[in-house]
Amino acid sequence: MSNSKWIWHFGDFEIYHTSLQNMRREQFGVQSYLPLWRTGQPHSMVKLYKKATIDTSEEIKCHANCLGNVEVRHNGKATKYNLDTKITLEPGENMVIVSLQKMGGIPSVIVFGNEFASNETWLCASYSQTEDDLPCGCNEHYTRIDDDVEKFFFVYDRIYPISRKTYENGTLFDFGKETYGLIHIDNISPNVQKKILIKYGESEEEALADKSIVYIFDYIDLSQNSITFKKRAFRYIFIEDDKGISYDISCDYEHLDIKNKAMFRCEDEKINKVYDACEYTLLLNMREGFLDGIKRDGWLWSGDAYQSYYVNYYSFFDVDTVKRTIIGLRGNDPIGQNINTIPDYSMYWICSIYDYYFHTGDYDFIKSIWPRIVTMLKFLESHCDNNGFYIKHSSDWVFIDWADTAKLGIVSALQMLFAHTYEQIAKIAEVLDIDNNIYLSKAENLKQKINDIYWDEKQGAFIDSIKNNTRDHIVTRHANIFAILFNLTSEDRQKSIYKNVIYNPNIAPITTPYFEFFELDALGKMGDLSYMTDMLNSYWGKMIELGATTIWEQFDPTKKGIEHYEMYGSQFGCSLCHAWGANPIYLIGRYILGVAPTSAGYKTFIIKPNKACFKDVCGRVPLPNGYVDIKIKDNEVKIISTCEGGTVEINDKKYVLKANKQMTFEI
Amino acid sequence: MSNSKWIWHFGDFEIYHTSLQNMRREQFGVQSYLPLWRTGQPHSMVKLYKKATIDTSEEIKCHANCLGNVEVRHNGKATKYNLDTKITLEPGENMVIVSLQKMGGIPSVIVFGNEFASNETWLCASYSQTEDDLPCGCNEHYTRIDDDVEKFFFVYDRIYPISRKTYENGTLFDFGKETYGLIHIDNISPNVQKKILIKYGESEEEALADKSIVYIFDYIDLSQNSITFKKRAFRYIFIEDDKGISYDISCDYEHLDIKNKAMFRCEDEKINKVYDACEYTLLLNMREGFLDGIKRDGWLWSGDAYQSYYVNYYSFFDVDTVKRTIIGLRGNDPIGQNINTIPDYSMYWICSIYDYYFHTGDYDFIKSIWPRIVTMLKFLESHCDNNGFYIKHSSDWVFIDWADTAKLGIVSALQMLFAHTYEQIAKIAEVLDIDNNIYLSKAENLKQKINDIYWDEKQGAFIDSIKNNTRDHIVTRHANIFAILFNLTSEDRQKSIYKNVIYNPNIAPITTPYFEFFELDALGKMGDLSYMTDMLNSYWGKMIELGATTIWEQFDPTKKGIEHYEMYGSQFGCSLCHAWGANPIYLIGRYILGVAPTSAGYKTFIIKPNKACFKDVCGRVPLPNGYVDIKIKDNEVKIISTCEGGTVEINDKKYVLKANKQMTFEI
Repeated sequence: MSNSKWIWHFGDFEIYHTSLQNMRREQFGVQSYLPLWRTGQPHSMVKLYKKATIDTSEEIKCHANCLGNVEVRHNGKATKYNLDTKITLEPGENMVIVSLQKMGGIPSVIVFGNEFASNETWLCASYSQTEDDLPCGCNEHYTRIDDDVEKFFFVYDRIYPISRKTYENGTLFDFGKETYGLIHIDNISPNVQKKILIKYGESEEEALADKSIVYIFDYIDLSQNSITFKKRAFRYIFIEDDKGISYDISCDYEHLDIKNKAMFRCEDEKINKVYDACEYTLLLNMREGFLDGIKRDGWLWSGDAYQSYYVNYYSFFDVDTVKRTIIGLRGNDPIGQNINTIPDYSMYWICSIYDYYFHTGDYDFIKSIWPRIVTMLKFLESHCDNNGFYIKHSSDWVFIDWADTAKLGIVSALQMLFAHTYEQIAKIAEVLDIDNNIYLSKAENLKQKINDIYWDEKQGAFIDSIKNNTRDHIVTRHANIFAILFNLTSEDRQKSIYKNVIYNPNIAPITTPYFEFFELDALGKMGDLSYMTDMLNSYWGKMIELGATTIWEQFDPTKKGIEHYEMYGSQFGCSLCHAWGANPIYLIGRYILGVAPTSAGYKTFIIKPNKACFKDVCGRVPLPNGYVDIKIKDNEVKIISTCEGGTVEINDKKYVLKANKQMTFEI
Repeated sequence: MSNSKWIWHFGDFEIYHTSLQNMRREQFGVQSYLPLWRTGQPHSMVKLYKKATIDTSEEIKCHANCLGNVEVRHNGKATKYNLDTKITLEPGENMVIVSLQKMGGIPSVIVFGNEFASNETWLCASYSQTEDDLPCGCNEHYTRIDDDVEKFFFVYDRIYPISRKTYENGTLFDFGKETYGLIHIDNISPNVQKKILIKYGESEEEALADKSIVYIFDYIDLSQNSITFKKRAFRYIFIEDDKGISYDISCDYEHLDIKNKAMFRCEDEKINKVYDACEYTLLLNMREGFLDGIKRDGWLWSGDAYQSYYVNYYSFFDVDTVKRTIIGLRGNDPIGQNINTIPDYSMYWICSIYDYYFHTGDYDFIKSIWPRIVTMLKFLESHCDNNGFYIKHSSDWVFIDWADTAKLGIVSALQMLFAHTYEQIAKIAEVLDIDNNIYLSKAENLKQKINDIYWDEKQGAFIDSIKNNTRDHIVTRHANIFAILFNLTSEDRQKSIYKNVIYNPNIAPITTPYFEFFELDALGKMGDLSYMTDMLNSYWGKMIELGATTIWEQFDPTKKGIEHYEMYGSQFGCSLCHAWGANPIYLIGRYILGVAPTSAGYKTFIIKPNKACFKDVCGRVPLPNGYVDIKIKDNEVKIISTCEGGTVEINDKKYVLKANKQMTFEI
C-alpha cells in the first residue's frame, strides 16, 4: 500500500476555507459582518479519476466524506461500486472514476491502494468543459481515513496573560503582544448567577473603552464553570464587574505550523525589531489565506495579498498560503463583479500569478488556474472602451490607494496596472505554450495609448485622469510610480518622473504603507535606497518606539497617543496588525541583501548586496529549496548559497556563485 | 403584523430540492447513482431587501436559518444589526437589507413586521450584475418561524399491503398499485439476530427475482424492533427468509398535496381507466420536480418534463411544480454543458418557458428567468456553425428519440427544434418589452436554411442529416413531425409530409410514447384524430388490460409476460411508471374536449370539441382560475365555463361563451 491523501476538485479546499475566514468578521456587536462581495463555494458535484496500467491485480477501497460511487473501466466494461467497498482491479489498463456529491462542504475521497492510491496523480472534473482534467487538490495534512478536510490544519499554543491590572470596574489582562485565538475562562467561582462583559483590545485603550466604541466584546455567563470564546484578535482583555469572582484566563493561540526561513540583523537594534515585528505581523495574517489585518477586516483583499506574497517570498516562503489565497480570492465562475469589487484588485490577482510562478517555478498551478485567468480577463475586457481602457462600472470601487488621487473619469494608474496585467498574462501563456500574441499586442497598444493620452509634457509627468474627454492636469505620485515600476514608458520619461514627481516636495507624499511599498520598490529598482533607510527609521522605527508589537495599518508620526488608533471614523478603527505594514521584509531582502530570481523558480538568481543603509548586516533569503546567506561588514561581503544558479553583482561586476561555496567580495 | 413568509434568492429553493431528488437514484446495490450532469446548488451569499415608505414607525425582527445581518438605510444613514434583534424603523423611506451566508442549504429569512413583513414584495441579489433586483422566492408552505425551508412540503398517507403470499423462501406483499414512500417494518419478533433481504418490485416478477437483477433491495436488521427504509418506488415487496418471524409492514406514501382539476369519462371504460392511470402516473412523478420515472431514473429530464408540463396544464394545473422543474433543470450559471447533456433538452427548456407563460400568464416568472434564458442561448450559440446550425459537441448527447434516426452529422430535427426555440425566445422577449428582432431574424434564417438544405424534393420530405457536407437521403418521422408541429415549412410541403411520411407505411413507426406525443400532437393540430383513437386502444388500453396501474416507459404489444419489463439490457429496466406515458391526458383535453389558450394565461381560449373518438363524453379542463366543462352525447354538445374569454368553434362556426352560462350545440 502506498501513502494515500484525501483528494478533491482543484480549488475546492481553498475556496471553502477562505470563505469561512471571510465570514468571521464581527464588529460593534454585529456578529456576522459579511463581505461586500460574493465569496465562493466549492463544487457540489465532482469527478476524481485516474487511468493507469497495472501488471498485477490491485485491491482498492474508496472512502469519502459524502455521497458517491466508484466506476471502474476495464477491458471496455464499466462497473459501478459503492464507496467503502473492496474492489479488485484486474491487470491491464484501468480507469477508476469516483463521483461525489456534497452541498456545503468539500466533496473529497481517500483511496487506499497501490498505483491507485489517491494523490496528486489523480485528475478532477466538474462537468464544466473549461475545467476538466485538472490535477486534483490534496495536501500533506490530510492523509488518514479519519482526517477531516473541512477542519483547517492550524496548530495551537496555550498562552497566558503576562500581567493583570485591577481597576475599579474590572480587570485588564495583557498578553504581551498582539495575538489571535480562543480565550478560555476556567475555574469560575461557583454559584455566580450573572453575565459580565469581556472586551477585546488591540490597544490597552480599546480594552478599557466604553463598549459602544469597542470593536469586539462578548459576555461571560458566570453560571458556567468554564467558557471558551470564538477565535479573535487582541492583545488586551478587559473583564468588567468581576469583583470577588475568581477565574483563570488563557488563550489557545491559533496559527499555521510554519517557520520563517529568512533572517536579518544589522547594527541598528531598532531596525532589527522592525524586522521581527514585520515577520510576526505577517504570520498573524497568514491563515486560510493572507488577510489584510487580523482584527479588522480579517478578510482576503487582493491588493493587500499581492504585497504579502512578496513579503512571504522573502520570509516564510510558504507557497501553499499563496496558492490558497489566489484561489480563494478568485472563487469559481461565473464572475459577477471584480475581486473585492475593485478592478485594480482583479488586475493584481492576475499579476500575482505570474509572480508566483517566477518565484516558485510551479508549473502545475498556473496550468490549473489558467481557465480562471481567461474568464477574469474576459470580465475585465467586458468593461473596456475602444482604447482598451478599463472603464469604471457602477458596482466597481476604483481603489488605487487611500489618497486623494483623482479617481473619477478614466484613471491612468488603473490603465497602467492593466497594461502590466496583459504583460503578465502574456508571460503565463508563454510558459503554458499558449499563443500569447494577442496579449502582447494588447499590452503594447495600451502602453502606447497611455503614453499618448496621459503624458503631460509641461509637468514632465503622467496626469491622473481623463474626464469627459478632458485631461485633468492633476499630477500625483500613484500613476507615475506605476510607470517606473512596470517599466511602461521611456527612460527619459522615467528620469523626468524621478525629478518632477518622486523628488518633488510639492507633490503630496504617499500616506499608506500600502502604496509606499510600490514607491520604495520603484526606487529600489532604480538603485536608490536613501528614501528607504529614512522610511525604515521614521515610519516603522517610530511605531516600534511607541511600543507596537505588530505593524499598524496607517501611521502618522505627528499624531499622539490614542489619536494613532483612529481610522474610518472610529476611535479604534486602525488595524494594529496589518499585513501591508510588513513590507520592509521584502524591501530588505530584495534591495539590501539584494536577492532576486532572474528566471522562474530561482533557477537563476542575482545577489546584489547594498551597503547604503547599514554597515553591519547579516541576513538570509530563502530559495525554493535552500537559501542564500549574506554578511556585510564595512567593505566586505561574504555570500554563500545552498543552491546553484546564483550570480553576484558587485560594483557593476558579475561573479558566478557555486553552491555551498562561500565567496568574499569587496564592496 | 402582516403575514410573513420565509424568503430566499430566486431559484435557490427549487435548485436545492431538485438537486436532492436527482441524488436519490440507486440501482443494483449502488446507493448513489449520481446524475451524468452537474446538478446545481443554491447561492451561498445573498441579499434580500425591500425599500418602502412608512407613515408610522414599525418594529421588525428578522430570523434566518444561517449567518447574516440586517442593514437599515434611513435618512442617509446605514445601520447594521444582528438577526433576531428588535429593530424600530422610523417613519419615512426605509431600505432593509438582509445579508445572508450559508453553504449547503438555502440561505433564507423570515421578517416579522407590517409593511416590511417578508413576502414576494422583497427583492433579491447575488452579487452577479445579471441577476440582481429579481423578486425573491417564497411560497405558502413556509410561513412560521419554525418552518424548515430545507424540508420539502410533502404530505404522507399511511398505506398497507392489500395481500400477502407465502413462498418457500419468504413472503410477497402487494400494495395494490405502484406507489412511492418509506417502508416501515414494525413489531419484529424479539431476539432474532440476523439480517434478511427485502426486494422492491414494480412488478411481482421483479420482487421475486434474484437479487442480482433487482433494481432496489435492502437488508432488514432483525435485532431491531422497528425499521424504516429510504423512500422508494414499488408495488411489490418480497421479504426473504422470514420463516417463523412476525412483523408488520406498512408504507408512508409520500406525495404532493394537490388535486386533479380535470376529469374525463367516455363510453369506453377501458379508456376511462387509461385516463385514471395516466393521472396517477403523472402524480407519482410530480415531486420536487417532474421526474421521468418514479423508480428509474427518478431524475429530472428536460425533454420528459416538457411533455409533463402539457399533461399538467390539462390535469393538476400545478404551476409551482412547473416552475420548480424549469429552475431545477437549469441550475445556476455558469453553464458547462447542455441540460442533461442533451442539446435538444436545452432547447425544450427554453421552449417550455414561453409555453408556461402562454398557459399561466405568469409575467414575474419569465422576467426572473430571462437572464438564464440569455446565457442558455449563448451557450447553445457557442456551438453553432456559419449556417446557425447547432453542431454536436464532444460532451453532447443528441437524443431526439430512442430510435434509429441518423444522429451523426448535422441533424435536421435538432435544427428544427432550434428554429422553434428562437421563435419562442422572440415571443418571451416581446412580452418583456425587449427588442426581439435578432431572435426573429435568427429563426427566419434557420427556417430558410432548413428548407433549403434538408428538403428532399424526390421523397417529398425532410431528410435526417448532413454528414461531411453530404445529404444522407434518409427519411424518418422525427424531423418531419417537427416540421408540421412547429410550422416550419410551407403548407404544400406539410401536405407532402403528411402523405409521404406520416401515412407512409414504409417509414418505420415511432416506438416510444415520448415521440408518439409529438406525432399525435402534430396530427391533432391538423384535426386528424383517427390515429389517436387507435393508439389509445391498442397501446395504452392494452397496457391496462395487462394489469398496469401506471403507464410504462415503453410498450410493444407483440411482447409477452416478463418480456415487457426488459429495457436497457436489464430484465427489469423498463420503468413501469413513466411520466411520458401520461400524454393521453393532454391529447384528450386538447383535441377531444378541444380546449386551448389563444392568448397568454387563457385570457382568451378556444373550445373545439371533437366527437371523432367517442360518442358519450364528459370532461373538464382546468383554467388558471376556473374550468370548462364539456359534455358530448351523440350529436349534442353542452359547454360551460367559469371564466370569460372562451370561444366555441363547432362545424367551422364560432360562438362567444359567457362565463357560467351553459351553451348547447349540435355537432
